[in-house]
Formats: sequence, structure tokens, C-alpha cells
Amino acid sequence: MTEPTRESGPRPRKTRSDGERSRSAILREAAQLATVEGLEGLSISRLAEAVGMSKSGLFAHFGSKEELQLATIETASGIFNEQVVEPANLAGTGLERLRQLCENFLRHVQESVFPGGCFFASVAAEMDTHPGPVRDLAMQLTDDWRRQLEQAVRDAQAEGAVDPSEDAAQLAFELNAYLLLANAQFVAGQDSTPIERARRAIAHRLDHRPVASVEDTALEGVFPAPG
Amino acid sequence: MTEPTRESGPRPRKTRSDGERSRSAILREAAQLATVEGLEGLSISRLAEAVGMSKSGLFAHFGSKEELQLATIETASGIFNEQVVEPANLAGTGLERLRQLCENFLRHVQESVFPGGCFFASVAAEMDTHPGPVRDLAMQLTDDWRRQLEQAVRDAQAEGAVDPSEDAAQLAFELNAYLLLANAQFVAGQDSTPIERARRAIAHRLDHRPVASVEDTALEGVFPAPG
Repeated sequence: MTEPTRESGPRPRKTRSDGERSRSAILREAAQLATVEGLEGLSISRLAEAVGMSKSGLFAHFGSKEELQLATIETASGIFNEQVVEPANLAGTGLERLRQLCENFLRHVQESVFPGGCFFASVAAEMDTHPGPVRDLAMQLTDDWRRQLEQAVRDAQAEGAVDPSEDAAQLAFELNAYLLLANAQFVAGQDSTPIERARRAIAHRLDHRPVASVEDTALEGVFPAPG
Repeated sequence: MTEPTRESGPRPRKTRSDGERSRSAILREAAQLATVEGLEGLSISRLAEAVGMSKSGLFAHFGSKEELQLATIETASGIFNEQVVEPANLAGTGLERLRQLCENFLRHVQESVFPGGCFFASVAAEMDTHPGPVRDLAMQLTDDWRRQLEQAVRDAQAEGAVDPSEDAAQLAFELNAYLLLANAQFVAGQDSTPIERARRAIAHRLDHRPVASVEDTALEGVFPAPG
């Protein structure tokens, strides 16, 4: 899904066409809605109601429900990158980037950037059993997030800030687990306790507990060394 | 939601009426379906198709979609207790019960007792933003699970098998986080790696890392001491 470029030359961003601006506004609304109604609940008629447009007006932007779903995922990905990933990429070290990825994630949940919590957690839970291009794109972006956490762990290891004998994928799994349970519980209860629990678990995992070698856990070999 | 008792006296279980038997079979099918289609996707007509009954036959069992949804949640809860909770309750110690709750959970995911993974994770993700009795029942049962983990932690602390200075709710949160991410990733990828990661994280958390006091984490007081 690429958004068609409608700018005809070197015009500055603010002058892009009404068509593009409204497409982008519709998709931001769609991304919000999808975390509440589900991507499957994102029918053209339901969205038309939410944005106050006619169904035929929406069809001019999106030819099918699948096209709308894919474009919505791309839009949500852009919002997530802007709020969570890009600010963390300014960090000076791998450890700091890792901490910021986690903290920015928790903040975007707590500030209800999407009313149903993390867009990708919401969509992944819905689409995991529905094969097709929509599921594939959602899973690919979820996977990108996992790899960003892992890369930050590896960078922190290279700096000596995290024990180099740690399995980077395992540590990333544990951090991601705290983030996603905090997301699920915050959305369900609208209470910040799970967010604080995740903060505590992350701080603990990164500060206070260099992990002992796990060669003795009988799981040796299950996880290949990170490439 | 209580299932009407149709037994008229002291007859043994196997002779209960066809009506009750088929109600139970329908609900087991509904619980399976709900982890794939969602509870909202569990329309009477979709279920009629899945169990090969007429819609009017199903209406004889369930007067409304909401009644069907509530009865489905109760049925899934029964299956979960039978597979995960009850076997763990036979354990001789709190620590062993805690380990078994975790291991039985992972096994029920890995064995695809429900095709869309943990019924309650699936339903909670769907219903968290939909207020009403269906959401309330799903959330109450999710909360029961959290409390069972916490109680097992506290029992293990009373036995001296887990550091008594640990915050039981915090430790239960971390264990639950590993379980639920393993569930989500297993359903998405149909690969056992996340199940093994959760096993490793749990073993590590319970065996190798008695947690240091967290009085210094600036989060003191956020979590009340377990009652």
C-alpha cells in the first residue's frame, strides 16, 4: 500500500491537494476506529458515518474494504513511528534507545493515542487467525517492532551496557511481554497501575539483574545466537 | 449465566437429557469459534452453520446473542479450569502450583485447545472497549486468573520458596506477561519458539533471580503490599 503522490512538483507540504489531505484525515480516523471496532468492523459505511462523508465519497478514496484496511495499517504505522520509534532513534546509545522505545510505547498507551490501546496489538489479536494480505502486513509490522527491540539490545551489548552473554531475542521478548500486558490491562481497566508495573519490570530487568548464564536450563540450542 | 438443570432426580451424569447434552456441545463449538471469529462474530446464524442446526433450533437454546455470548464465556471458563487450573490445584506446594499454572497455560496454548489461542486473551482484546455484561464477565474471569497467580506467589512466599520481599502482584504480572506474549506469538506464527521463551523466562524468574529490594526504584508506594 503506497499512498499516491498527488504533489505535482516542488510545492511545500502544506499546499498538498485537498484530496490527499482528506485521505490522510480519513485514514487517521480509521486507525482510531479500528482499535475499538476491529479492522473487520471497519466497513466503508461505518467509516462514512464516523467521518461524515458519503459512502460513494469514500469509495473514491478506497476501492475496497481490503484497500482501506491496508491503508489504515500503514497510517497507524506512521503514527506509531512518529510517536514511539523516531524519538527513540535520537538517543545516543543503544541502552538509551532501548529504554526510550519502551517508555515511548508505554506513554503512547497511557495517552490513548489510539482509544483501544496499541494499534498493532489490537489488530494482531483480531487478524492472527485470518490469513491474507491484511494479516500479513499487520504481522510484518509487529515483527519490525520486535526486531527494533532486539537490535537495541544488541547495540547495548556491544556498548557493554547489557551483559553480552544475554540472548538478545530472549531479553527483547521479556521486555515486549511487559509492554503488551501493560497495554492490555490499561485498556481494560483505564488505570495506570499496569503501566507502572511494566516500568518497574523493565527498570529491574535492565538495571538490577544481569542474567546468569542459561546454559544449564536444558533449553540450550533452542534459540540460535543472534546473527 | 447458569445452565438450566434438566435432570429430574438422582440420575447419573451420563443419562442427562439430549437437550442439555446438545446445549453443552453447541457451547463448546461456540467457544472454539469465538477465538477465531470473535465473540461479536458469534452470530446465531454463523453458529447454526458451524453446528449444523437451524437458527430456530439454536434460538430454543439461547434467546439472544448476548445470552449465547455469556454462556460461551462460561463454557470456555469451564474448559480452562479443567485443563489449566484444576490440575495445578493438586500440587503440594505454592511454588509447584505456580509453576503448574504457568506450564498448563502454555500447554493449552501449544495444544490449541482453542484454535485462536487463550480464549480470555482473545475475548479481552476484542471486548475491552465494549462496555456491557459480556465485557464484565470476560474481565472478571481474566481477573480471577490474575488473582490465582498472585495467590500462588503468596503461598510460595509463605513457604520460603520465593523471596518474601517480592511484591506478589508484580511477580504475577511479569509471569502473566510472558504467558500472554507467548500465546499471542504462538497463534500468529504457529511456531513453538515463543512458548520456549516463556518457559525460559519463567524458570529464570523463579529459580535464578531472587529479586533485590526495589525500595530504590522511586516507585515505592505505588504498589500496596499484598493484603
